[in-house]
Amino acid sequence: MINNRLENLQQQLTKYNLDAVIIPSTDPHQSEYVAEHWKIREHFSGFSGSAGVLVVLKNEAALWTDSRYFLQFEDECQTYNINLHKQSIPHAPEHVQWLVDSLEENADIGLDFLQFSKAQIDYIKEISKSKNIALKNTPNLIDEIWKNRPALPNFPVNIHPLEYSGESTASKIKKIQNKITNAKADYYLFSSLDEIAWLFNIRSQDVDFTPLVTAYALVGLENTHLFCDRNRFSASAIASFSNLNIEIIDYHLAIDAFEKLDANKKIITDVSSLNYAVYSAVQSKFLFQNSLAKELKAIKNETEIAGSKNCMLKDGVALTKFFMWLEKELTARSISEYEIGKKLEGFRKQQDLYVGESFAAIVGYKGNGAIIHYTATENGAVMVKNEDILLVDSGAQYKDGTTDITRTVWLGGTPTSELKIAYTSVLKGYIALEQLQFPKGTVGMQMDAFARFHLWNQGLNYPHGTGHGIGSFGMVHEPAQGFTTNPATSSGSTAHLPNQLTTIEPGCYKKDVYGIRIENIVLSIAKETTEFGEFLGFTPLTLFPIDRQLIDKSLLTDSEIAWFNSYHQMVLQELSPLLNNDEVEWLKAMCEKL
Amino acid sequence: MINNRLENLQQQLTKYNLDAVIIPSTDPHQSEYVAEHWKIREHFSGFSGSAGVLVVLKNEAALWTDSRYFLQFEDECQTYNINLHKQSIPHAPEHVQWLVDSLEENADIGLDFLQFSKAQIDYIKEISKSKNIALKNTPNLIDEIWKNRPALPNFPVNIHPLEYSGESTASKIKKIQNKITNAKADYYLFSSLDEIAWLFNIRSQDVDFTPLVTAYALVGLENTHLFCDRNRFSASAIASFSNLNIEIIDYHLAIDAFEKLDANKKIITDVSSLNYAVYSAVQSKFLFQNSLAKELKAIKNETEIAGSKNCMLKDGVALTKFFMWLEKELTARSISEYEIGKKLEGFRKQQDLYVGESFAAIVGYKGNGAIIHYTATENGAVMVKNEDILLVDSGAQYKDGTTDITRTVWLGGTPTSELKIAYTSVLKGYIALEQLQFPKGTVGMQMDAFARFHLWNQGLNYPHGTGHGIGSFGMVHEPAQGFTTNPATSSGSTAHLPNQLTTIEPGCYKKDVYGIRIENIVLSIAKETTEFGEFLGFTPLTLFPIDRQLIDKSLLTDSEIAWFNSYHQMVLQELSPLLNNDEVEWLKAMCEKL
Repeated sequence: MINNRLENLQQQLTKYNLDAVIIPSTDPHQSEYVAEHWKIREHFSGFSGSAGVLVVLKNEAALWTDSRYFLQFEDECQTYNINLHKQSIPHAPEHVQWLVDSLEENADIGLDFLQFSKAQIDYIKEISKSKNIALKNTPNLIDEIWKNRPALPNFPVNIHPLEYSGESTASKIKKIQNKITNAKADYYLFSSLDEIAWLFNIRSQDVDFTPLVTAYALVGLENTHLFCDRNRFSASAIASFSNLNIEIIDYHLAIDAFEKLDANKKIITDVSSLNYAVYSAVQSKFLFQNSLAKELKAIKNETEIAGSKNCMLKDGVALTKFFMWLEKELTARSISEYEIGKKLEGFRKQQDLYVGESFAAIVGYKGNGAIIHYTATENGAVMVKNEDILLVDSGAQYKDGTTDITRTVWLGGTPTSELKIAYTSVLKGYIALEQLQFPKGTVGMQMDAFARFHLWNQGLNYPHGTGHGIGSFGMVHEPAQGFTTNPATSSGSTAHLPNQLTTIEPGCYKKDVYGIRIENIVLSIAKETTEFGEFLGFTPLTLFPIDRQLIDKSLLTDSEIAWFNSYHQMVLQELSPLLNNDEVEWLKAMCEKL
Repeated sequence: MINNRLENLQQQLTKYNLDAVIIPSTDPHQSEYVAEHWKIREHFSGFSGSAGVLVVLKNEAALWTDSRYFLQFEDECQTYNINLHKQSIPHAPEHVQWLVDSLEENADIGLDFLQFSKAQIDYIKEISKSKNIALKNTPNLIDEIWKNRPALPNFPVNIHPLEYSGESTASKIKKIQNKITNAKADYYLFSSLDEIAWLFNIRSQDVDFTPLVTAYALVGLENTHLFCDRNRFSASAIASFSNLNIEIIDYHLAIDAFEKLDANKKIITDVSSLNYAVYSAVQSKFLFQNSLAKELKAIKNETEIAGSKNCMLKDGVALTKFFMWLEKELTARSISEYEIGKKLEGFRKQQDLYVGESFAAIVGYKGNGAIIHYTATENGAVMVKNEDILLVDSGAQYKDGTTDITRTVWLGGTPTSELKIAYTSVLKGYIALEQLQFPKGTVGMQMDAFARFHLWNQGLNYPHGTGHGIGSFGMVHEPAQGFTTNPATSSGSTAHLPNQLTTIEPGCYKKDVYGIRIENIVLSIAKETTEFGEFLGFTPLTLFPIDRQLIDKSLLTDSEIAWFNSYHQMVLQELSPLLNNDEVEWLKAMCEKL
């Protein structure tokens, strides 16, 4: 079936007089997760990983992805006529040079400008120059051959009420208008779906796991236009937006409207989230700036922080019930990773204001825990027994917040000392970063190594970032702050500020043997102000015990043991009032002093 | 006198039909320290700091520098008609926007293209565009009014022999030629003076404290041209270069020769070290790459490492004699900071292969230690007594290596607990970074905070980078690796590799009260290779005790105490054979176990 689709695509190349087509994994808003309508790469390759680019030439199809997905590619695509190119750096545009090398002089490459940022198009043009290769915008090429392509999302749009958002749309728009005035501009153009959801306090279900709404927005000093299909809104929502001078205009009219704006109007925008079609339509009018919404949104207000704390209680209760169930059930039978994930989802579903999972839960037994983006399928899942190691990374969308937690547990038998050293080093790294006091202005790349150095000291390491921002009933990976080794990313180069929510999640992975990760969400807080400046720190919000069976206590310092005991005292104290007697007894054992 | 010079400069504006002139602090090779001939900014402003830009308009003169130099500006320039503009970020081009704002439309700015990089000119052009302001190259404007301007350096050029360099010029040029071949280019153009000194194994005294030679070089696949005045070389040097197909051509002929190169030749170069005059002459032929010489030079060979170790012995002996002298002399009299610096220089002069200081020694008593680039002058120096705190940062150029060491000592009385906490935190930071094991590929910005976090934890910090590369009888600040909070610098973004020499120098400074800094040179070494990769670390080369009087032992962990004792055991063992009995006794007391 996939091979047929690829052949159809190659026929389109002939029809459109193209020599190749590039199919990326994004949507017109540079989203991380995309609506079904935009899963073009998956449709034509069968590869469902979140990162990867498909390049199709007349006689060849090739896919680039990084090490997180090599095994998944083998699983999903081995019978298809697609060559895998292994990227060493995720999202690196290595396919461009390869494609230019493969093509003749004066060749033509087709692509949909909606799916590419300005920087991406500039890069492809730069590399193509040497062979005089041209880029053609081919917006209809896919539609013509993708039978039954899912429509653009058309779910009802819900208003995210003040009791969860903590700030009115009017107040947020006022801040954006002040920014416009200060920059002597006329408009602020928004393209990032999470920024639009934040600004208008709207939510829907356009994208799996993420309550976003497909839209563009143009904020002016007097009027605001929200480009989103009107039929998705209730009459009362349209009316109340209208009272705020917000007009809702159908999504497909957006680019045309941008083009028709008066040529001497100035528009602020964050170019990194813009697609090339929008960029081309409006380019002479743009003033590029960092996204103000990104900065404002990353700093949670009191309501959002209270909501997040409430979600941690709910997650803690669900995880307590889940792990108690798992422990008991494993004494009687083996359970598949898939069933375990479903059961966990079930316990979360019982919680107040639950909407759905915030990402596909990762339940990885033994060596499967070492596959960093592992998702157990109903048929392919491994059976878990009451022995060895299990990694569970999961989270939920609640109306009052978003969660993300990883725990790694020992299910029975005797762990090797090698495993205990790795686990204890991961824990020490978590504690070191969470306990770090740092001056205001410190960025993620300066702090990332504090979660690693205990591992490094043992000759260990992990091949992913150490943490990411998280939304408030929003994206589970939310820019801008985080912890990473890469200075070119926002999570490497953004300063941490008070009232941000960020994950800390060091790990250690041994192929085919184990995966370890410990992840909490932490809140940034002000610690002290001295003549040397303002100093910040973190406090953990996630509430669930960290398994002690894999800890080698002799490797912990007194202050690490004190941290461990104090964290577990807090977990016990916060969760106990929400649990029944059996559950409290179970939790007490889990929270005993080290 | 300075005011007269400024008036002469303003008359030149009229003569050349200019509205302003920009006078930076660099030479045509983007050097950190420059020859007397290029100290134009100092000549016309009286300001001798190493960083600063003078901008002169018809009715105003203004100087931009950063906080390290505010006090120095006040000292040196308060009677001159120059307005100080305080920069928050060193070297930031804030003066450009100010100048453009101050000028009328269609104004003309004069500057000498030799003193500006391509990036700097591009930036000025970009800012000037809005007012249609033009940049004029005015190479003769200064010469006409600077009477008795020092000539370009014309000191004899010495060959740096194989016994110190460890690699022949032939071998180094071969590596460059391989690079040219691999890049399908014809030439490699060198403009950085330290790269040229390294490549040709030549040294001179063109620049204070730094044994460099003013030159350009063009390496071809068959022939190499070294643009440096021929009369500076001995006949035998010219002959042996000639045997390597290296032709020496007078310095002033360089740009003309670059211009005349065949238009279809391709030239590799590192654009960051190129001045705009050279860039303009050759631009169509350039392939820009990172500097290969910078990478090769940063990794020291066995001879250079042995030389560096030998220099540490000599520095250790000189410092032992110096601090013994200081301790004794202070019991009898007060001594000026200036005299102390001269005395230290005297002890180093007695050492084998001594050439000179590697920078102007910083001898800062009490609050003067908090002025990070403090230089005591003969008349302005403070008198040091046998009480309170003294910071001594100094280094030397020996023919077999370059040194740089800081020690902070307590001279008598009872230190406050606040001071002991700060000093002990600096020491803990030094140990943490020096003891760090890290994967190959880790860059300076990821490691910098390990020297800071103990300070941060106490609400303390320091406003400078944590360390820099160091040359081998070369520049005391040598690119590329180092430790800094700034990702835009090479020392923030360059991976550390085995066999590099780098300083680790955390500090803490309280205005008007104290300056603390502890600085050693460390060698990067391979530690272990595991399935998680190659891991590197550092080992200290500097040999001199760290003052224990300011240590609060209760703040040190067992492993920090073990490090301290083991370091001092090494210092005692290495230095003792080179000292007389009294000196050994003194050193033994300094190196006792904590």
